[in-house]
Amino acid sequence: MKHARVAVYGSIHDAVEVNGKLQLNDGRIVDQEQVVWLPPITPGTVFVLGLNYADHAKELTFQAPEEPLVFLKGPNTLVGHRGQTRKPNDASHMHYECELAVVIGKAAKKVQKANAYDYVAGYTIANDYAIRDYLENYYRPNLRVKNRDTGTPIGPWLIDRDDIKDPMNLSLRTYVNGELKQEGNTRDMIFDIPSLIEYLSGFMTLQPGDLILTGTPEGVTKVHAGDEVVTEIEGIGRLVNNIVSDEVFQR
Amino acid sequence: MKHARVAVYGSIHDAVEVNGKLQLNDGRIVDQEQVVWLPPITPGTVFVLGLNYADHAKELTFQAPEEPLVFLKGPNTLVGHRGQTRKPNDASHMHYECELAVVIGKAAKKVQKANAYDYVAGYTIANDYAIRDYLENYYRPNLRVKNRDTGTPIGPWLIDRDDIKDPMNLSLRTYVNGELKQEGNTRDMIFDIPSLIEYLSGFMTLQPGDLILTGTPEGVTKVHAGDEVVTEIEGIGRLVNNIVSDEVFQR
Repeated sequence: MKHARVAVYGSIHDAVEVNGKLQLNDGRIVDQEQVVWLPPITPGTVFVLGLNYADHAKELTFQAPEEPLVFLKGPNTLVGHRGQTRKPNDASHMHYECELAVVIGKAAKKVQKANAYDYVAGYTIANDYAIRDYLENYYRPNLRVKNRDTGTPIGPWLIDRDDIKDPMNLSLRTYVNGELKQEGNTRDMIFDIPSLIEYLSGFMTLQPGDLILTGTPEGVTKVHAGDEVVTEIEGIGRLVNNIVSDEVFQR
Repeated sequence: MKHARVAVYGSIHDAVEVNGKLQLNDGRIVDQEQVVWLPPITPGTVFVLGLNYADHAKELTFQAPEEPLVFLKGPNTLVGHRGQTRKPNDASHMHYECELAVVIGKAAKKVQKANAYDYVAGYTIANDYAIRDYLENYYRPNLRVKNRDTGTPIGPWLIDRDDIKDPMNLSLRTYVNGELKQEGNTRDMIFDIPSLIEYLSGFMTLQPGDLILTGTPEGVTKVHAGDEVVTEIEGIGRLVNNIVSDEVFQR
């Protein structure tokens, strides 16, 4: 099933997809165009992988990591489907990053790879924008690169785990103004989903609602104010985002 | 005024200090020993400074940073006053870090130093434990070092901003089993509170309830299961924490 969280008719609703429309949790049916899409979950912690596709690490001229490179993002960064993302005037290298996002379904502590999917609720799409102007010469990016307001669109849907037969074989694509710019496949992750859950749960507890952004393949390019950026993952959906200028925010 | 958040009589309450006791928000008075102390706020984002005291940077043989080194901690790390903190068996260098924690009071975007305190709600104490065994040779620590469950005791009190005359001149002390181990003063921060608020709000929005842990002075030493660790800040309070072994958790 495809789950969403939307604002319409004066309040916020959980909803599911029914025949291309949204059915709100009170039974009302609304058009997808009629709502404000919110992130499909309100995550506890957002874990993000750096350099988890060898081709992308190579593209940035980094060595592939020997251990997962994980950092956190704050709630200020999240926006939903069809949201606006701010491009700071001081950013000349702002890159989209299409990423499969794994939603944790139950508390996970010292989980083995073989059972890791038992702890997954489902999947969504994240566009993990980076302001590369501020990237320093080591692996874990600083907050100016990765913690900007509106810098992480997620959604539109949370897809139930069992609806995705093989999450480690899904194509990822990013389109800027309709043009295909990034293409990859989750099979090329360096650390796959079970490995990431085993790694993180090995030294801390993953909580229901935690989100793991699993990294991006090669093909990152610059975006500009006015661009429409669509990140798409096979079977998961199509996340639309619009880049707006600093001036739109006025402070 | 001194604010706390406690569990007693079957529910969670906001409370204030009255004559050495706690007055719950429903008017009942209880002893401080009678309650379970929770973190005094449920923070949105926890920002943490690395190497923000020159003496501590020197102690760890790092150069002092030229720009604030900031990373995030997840909600899994937080525990309240008199909480237990787990010492992993694979950690031989687990260090306490006494830190002044600044609680943001209203949304802060592009704030100037001169007005920065307007955006502060108050202060509390954090003990930002580090598992130094996993520290790599660069400045921003990884999750194994800083994102362990129970690794960040905070509290006991949130003290209103105006009750602290000069937050940049407060002594900090840590006692292990009653013995003074760490001593410093907030005046020795490399980036002071107004500078940190100006820096962070310069590229993102600080939200009410966000927490900034401002770094620790020199004097970090190892702790062991069974230790009682007290971090104390002049005018803010005295945060008690107990180190327990991995085995207590059983998984």
